[in-house]
Amino acid sequence: MSGSNTGILFRLSSFGESHGPAVGGVVDGCPPGISLCEADLQQALDRRRPGQSSVSTSRNEVDKVEILSGVFEGKSTGTPIAFLIRNKDQRSEDYKELAEVYRPSHADLVYEQKYGIRDHRGGGRSSARETAVRVAAGAIAAAMLSKLGIEIVAWVIQAGEIRLPDSLAYSVYTQTDTDAFVVRCPVAEYASRMENLITGLKASGDSCGGVVHCMVRGLHAGVGEPVYEKLNARIGAAMLSINACKGIEFGSGFRAANMKGSAHNDAYKIKDGNIQTQSNHAGGIQGGISNGNEIRFDVAFKPPSTISVAQNTVNKQGQELILKAVGRHDPCVVPRAVPVVEAMCALVLADLVLIQGSRLWFRQQINH
Amino acid sequence: MSGSNTGILFRLSSFGESHGPAVGGVVDGCPPGISLCEADLQQALDRRRPGQSSVSTSRNEVDKVEILSGVFEGKSTGTPIAFLIRNKDQRSEDYKELAEVYRPSHADLVYEQKYGIRDHRGGGRSSARETAVRVAAGAIAAAMLSKLGIEIVAWVIQAGEIRLPDSLAYSVYTQTDTDAFVVRCPVAEYASRMENLITGLKASGDSCGGVVHCMVRGLHAGVGEPVYEKLNARIGAAMLSINACKGIEFGSGFRAANMKGSAHNDAYKIKDGNIQTQSNHAGGIQGGISNGNEIRFDVAFKPPSTISVAQNTVNKQGQELILKAVGRHDPCVVPRAVPVVEAMCALVLADLVLIQGSRLWFRQQINH
Amino acid sequence: MSGSNTGILFRLSSFGESHGPAVGGVVDGCPPGISLCEADLQQALDRRRPGQSSVSTSRNEVDKVEILSGVFEGKSTGTPIAFLIRNKDQRSEDYKELAEVYRPSHADLVYEQKYGIRDHRGGGRSSARETAVRVAAGAIAAAMLSKLGIEIVAWVIQAGEIRLPDSLAYSVYTQTDTDAFVVRCPVAEYASRMENLITGLKASGDSCGGVVHCMVRGLHAGVGEPVYEKLNARIGAAMLSINACKGIEFGSGFRAANMKGSAHNDAYKIKDGNIQTQSNHAGGIQGGISNGNEIRFDVAFKPPSTISVAQNTVNKQGQELILKAVGRHDPCVVPRAVPVVEAMCALVLADLVLIQGSRLWFRQQINH
Amino acid sequence: MSGSNTGILFRLSSFGESHGPAVGGVVDGCPPGISLCEADLQQALDRRRPGQSSVSTSRNEVDKVEILSGVFEGKSTGTPIAFLIRNKDQRSEDYKELAEVYRPSHADLVYEQKYGIRDHRGGGRSSARETAVRVAAGAIAAAMLSKLGIEIVAWVIQAGEIRLPDSLAYSVYTQTDTDAFVVRCPVAEYASRMENLITGLKASGDSCGGVVHCMVRGLHAGVGEPVYEKLNARIGAAMLSINACKGIEFGSGFRAANMKGSAHNDAYKIKDGNIQTQSNHAGGIQGGISNGNEIRFDVAFKPPSTISVAQNTVNKQGQELILKAVGRHDPCVVPRAVPVVEAMCALVLADLVLIQGSRLWFRQQINH
Repeated sequence: MSGSNTGILFRLSSFGESHGPAVGGVVDGCPPGISLCEADLQQALDRRRPGQSSVSTSRNEVDKVEILSGVFEGKSTGTPIAFLIRNKDQRSEDYKELAEVYRPSHADLVYEQKYGIRDHRGGGRSSARETAVRVAAGAIAAAMLSKLGIEIVAWVIQAGEIRLPDSLAYSVYTQTDTDAFVVRCPVAEYASRMENLITGLKASGDSCGGVVHCMVRGLHAGVGEPVYEKLNARIGAAMLSINACKGIEFGSGFRAANMKGSAHNDAYKIKDGNIQTQSNHAGGIQGGISNGNEIRFDVAFKPPSTISVAQNTVNKQGQELILKAVGRHDPCVVPRAVPVVEAMCALVLADLVLIQGSRLWFRQQINH
Repeated sequence: MSGSNTGILFRLSSFGESHGPAVGGVVDGCPPGISLCEADLQQALDRRRPGQSSVSTSRNEVDKVEILSGVFEGKSTGTPIAFLIRNKDQRSEDYKELAEVYRPSHADLVYEQKYGIRDHRGGGRSSARETAVRVAAGAIAAAMLSKLGIEIVAWVIQAGEIRLPDSLAYSVYTQTDTDAFVVRCPVAEYASRMENLITGLKASGDSCGGVVHCMVRGLHAGVGEPVYEKLNARIGAAMLSINACKGIEFGSGFRAANMKGSAHNDAYKIKDGNIQTQSNHAGGIQGGISNGNEIRFDVAFKPPSTISVAQNTVNKQGQELILKAVGRHDPCVVPRAVPVVEAMCALVLADLVLIQGSRLWFRQQINH
Repeated sequence: MSGSNTGILFRLSSFGESHGPAVGGVVDGCPPGISLCEADLQQALDRRRPGQSSVSTSRNEVDKVEILSGVFEGKSTGTPIAFLIRNKDQRSEDYKELAEVYRPSHADLVYEQKYGIRDHRGGGRSSARETAVRVAAGAIAAAMLSKLGIEIVAWVIQAGEIRLPDSLAYSVYTQTDTDAFVVRCPVAEYASRMENLITGLKASGDSCGGVVHCMVRGLHAGVGEPVYEKLNARIGAAMLSINACKGIEFGSGFRAANMKGSAHNDAYKIKDGNIQTQSNHAGGIQGGISNGNEIRFDVAFKPPSTISVAQNTVNKQGQELILKAVGRHDPCVVPRAVPVVEAMCALVLADLVLIQGSRLWFRQQINH
Repeated sequence: MSGSNTGILFRLSSFGESHGPAVGGVVDGCPPGISLCEADLQQALDRRRPGQSSVSTSRNEVDKVEILSGVFEGKSTGTPIAFLIRNKDQRSEDYKELAEVYRPSHADLVYEQKYGIRDHRGGGRSSARETAVRVAAGAIAAAMLSKLGIEIVAWVIQAGEIRLPDSLAYSVYTQTDTDAFVVRCPVAEYASRMENLITGLKASGDSCGGVVHCMVRGLHAGVGEPVYEKLNARIGAAMLSINACKGIEFGSGFRAANMKGSAHNDAYKIKDGNIQTQSNHAGGIQGGISNGNEIRFDVAFKPPSTISVAQNTVNKQGQELILKAVGRHDPCVVPRAVPVVEAMCALVLADLVLIQGSRLWFRQQINH
């Protein structure tokens, strides 16, 4: 639990630095019998891959994944699934001069403060390259969840000052809708404006932040462990562990602050013989437990810290200097954050669904 | 890890229902040698206690705490510290009629869906009464942190539509400043307006949401465990585990979404021979690690679900009906959420500070 | 995980010192719907209670247990079950003189070395009084396991030099058979000899060790988590965490060292259409997983360290001295260790059965 | 925590099947600043490697290890250290006929019962090949421990019926002493007899069990976490998780059962101004905490289940048949178990030393 492990029954251990030999992970606790192959992971990685479009970094990582264990004859065996992604295009010489300089709003300085030592090549462990591991592991979780009819789709609702109106932002889209646009905002008009904004920032060497919305469909009621491992607490931790994430809100979120209870409460009704709610301000979670509605949450990301605009900073020798950044990065992370958000959500759900599953199994045993 | 445990080295196990015999907790891993007595816990609990003022519920819980273990001759011994708070004023007959009805936006229905059984007296385990446990445990964590010069102060920055302007919201206050007002907003003019709003809602049987801001001072750089147990991820989970919490943001938070990198980056400078940042958009955390600045975050709470305005709901028999709520609750949770937010923050910091402490100890060993 | 927590899905947090206000525990993760009341825990505690017979200490602890949460209308609710046992008969003045002296083979000195501080009243946290918590929690686990037809019975096979021959030691007995004798050895002739031995040692102020054998019946195949949470690894840790435990062996145990593979292998056969083994050298566990046979293991206990024979020791001031022990203790722990061994085994099984249960639940979901 | 993770602050995640692409592991929580390279791991692996001598399997695994992360410029960085060992010499066709047959005392059947699916090539995940991961990870732990002056040495004290007398078994040896003999028993006469025994069994297609003794020197007092994560409990679990392990005992172990307290207690004395014990029946652990003495424990291993003597077994179709084993295995595991025992001990100590380290760090902070 020194930070690179997450989950209880469905557990990911991650490793790797941006400019070391490889990044990868071990998923322990994936149930047996799930059809799985390298192509499943590769497909997910290809969505996260840099160098895909005008709005992302020109750095081109092939991100070819290899499964090392836990899959036999095309199915998971229940044993740990390890996967490996070799680092390519490691121009670490680009970073040599950064060995002595602390880049503003990067983790360079805090890593040295924490560990007393630092792999200075491109962020090392703090690099967003680590999110490739999340995406590959998330593909395993998603394969498991799809067996249960659970589907996760995220999309961009804001890039810089361009934001979808709520009626569009919190509508329902598919991955196909989202991937139709390089910025992964599923509404053409807004997607186009976002793309223009981002390419403009790229040209000027600046960057912007954004917001991703995520929706889960098909999740049964009863998932989430009160009181400290609530579904929203676990999803929240997962999202806030993603590089550049600044905030998360569920359902009505911060907007709930200035709502009245009489407006915010999700009244119950009977429809087709089932109990349903008339609204979903809860974002599908009550008391930390899924209630059978769609899960809905927003995740805020800051503007990438790597910019080519000149900045004040200091070096190891304690001297102030002007930095013009080296390295190739995205001017806005949200398009590529979409698959990372989905992956982290899948990892949390896989874990909590299995924990609730043990309770359901026991209930069956004692009821017959 | 079935939900009522949290922390790794500094660990809380919580128990209790609102209308059972007692609530309480066990803190395992508190370092030895810290001065501690029941009065320390009691003082913290008294800040959370209902029935304190015009803005909180009229339900009066004495919340008398008893320490059962782990303290000897006024000091922690390093063994588990158990504490107990007997429930008083348990008018559970108030709740009898609720046994058959699912209150909108409460956890009644999901608890039944999850567990197949429910203690229907006043929310049972899902009651905010459980936050008393957090506050008592938080007092232990705070006692430990104060030995290291770490101080946590939270205050209300928004209740309903009344919100402090940013310049006031994100200023610096003490607990004395905050506790001077029943709404725990440290700015008199706004406090007064919030109090009026809340007492008005109380009269009309409605409720409102709000936002709490929390600041940590004196935390050394290097705390937080990349990549999944980042300081913000852990604090985020802790806050989202609090009843009625809808969202959390660090530093610039959701506002970062429409900022440019050139404006958002916290540039470094040298001041008095030390590296400092010129701004604190990061909220004191880089790459999931404390950077020595103040930690800053906002926590959003929804309006309480218990209102006496009539609402549509359903019962166990699947019949629709109109509910006028029974039970006594706060019209706005944020005044009493302040000590809960501080407590949860203290629990996370105690844990992560100890984990980093082991690294610092080892560094010392190999350096001499 | 600072030592007083154990288990993953079915988790015990324990607290309490021998001469503080109380000992107790919190069981988190007990499935809902299990009939449970204080009498169930009390009955288990009464079997562990000192002062029961000629072979145990004259110290009389009433050990009255109170359930504080997690049980509603006679059934577990799935929320944490906390229980409390107030300490009585706390003649802590007996121990005052021990504040300055380190008793040989007690934990007095190491607690000071570890924590820098010590509750010197009767062993404090290191006292065997903590095993009352295990027994009460074990009763909850046993109630859960009995719903699945799983039964755990332990008995004494050795006290001092008196040992049952293997044919009797590894036979099958019930709790009734075992409890018929104060030494909890179910074979009358040997029980009588053991009783004589122990009462003789009591008279002479000395003590002896012993061995407990434990058998589990009705455990289905498939329980235990390779590779580090194997069923035998988890049971082993549980037993070695019991005060005075010196060793554990499964099935053939240390005797396997001088057996040949051709004699040790448990050959398979078909009986009544099912696969069975012709022997059970494995003790019911293969590759860390239950195989459907009886689980069988032996646990060795040292002679109690508290004796009234004079011993060489030292005090806090670094002076050598002669100690004649104060305090009332058992001359042989194994009779009272029997319910503790059963309880710890129940805790491990409850946890691992639930973990495997989640896998079985998932298998069902994807198979229909 | 689904079985392939172990440790809290110093944590190993293991993966890999005997006949899949690779085995490997991720060590999270290794402190930064430790000199480490692939040669350190390779040297450890070479001691475990099969095909080394007349007493081990003729299967020749090169076991070439590659470090993938966490080491930069020859030092650990504090981030996860991943390592990979590609499988060679995978004659999996040898095992094809075993796909349908359950080998006695192997984990074939229980894996199918547990997971409903099995990688039948040579044991898959249950293969002793997984111990290579333990040994490589153990080398990392040992590198850390050596910085603190902690050294672990294990040796064979019994193979089949040949056992060192206690005076020789529990003496002090170095790794050089032990590795001087292919059976890793450091006493020439006995080593020779053991070698003859084992080569004889190899010729006859049979196997035998054995016992490994392990000694830790230089461990400071205060390590181990009462009450469920005691040093002996953690070491016990670690040893019992090793393939073929049947039992463990500390210090006097099972021999304590027929000792009297007056003989077993380790009396204190003052020597050179320090408190010391006159004996070490405790095996260096009191109340689950290291007391500064040598840690001493014995580990029993069963005879390998793979023999070429004909055995009764059954197949998937439920038919009885006679099996003459295929595959190449060791006739006695203890010579190659020596480095595995040392490695598992190192992993436990690294973890518990760091946990105690955090307490020592805090003590320092509050004392100045």
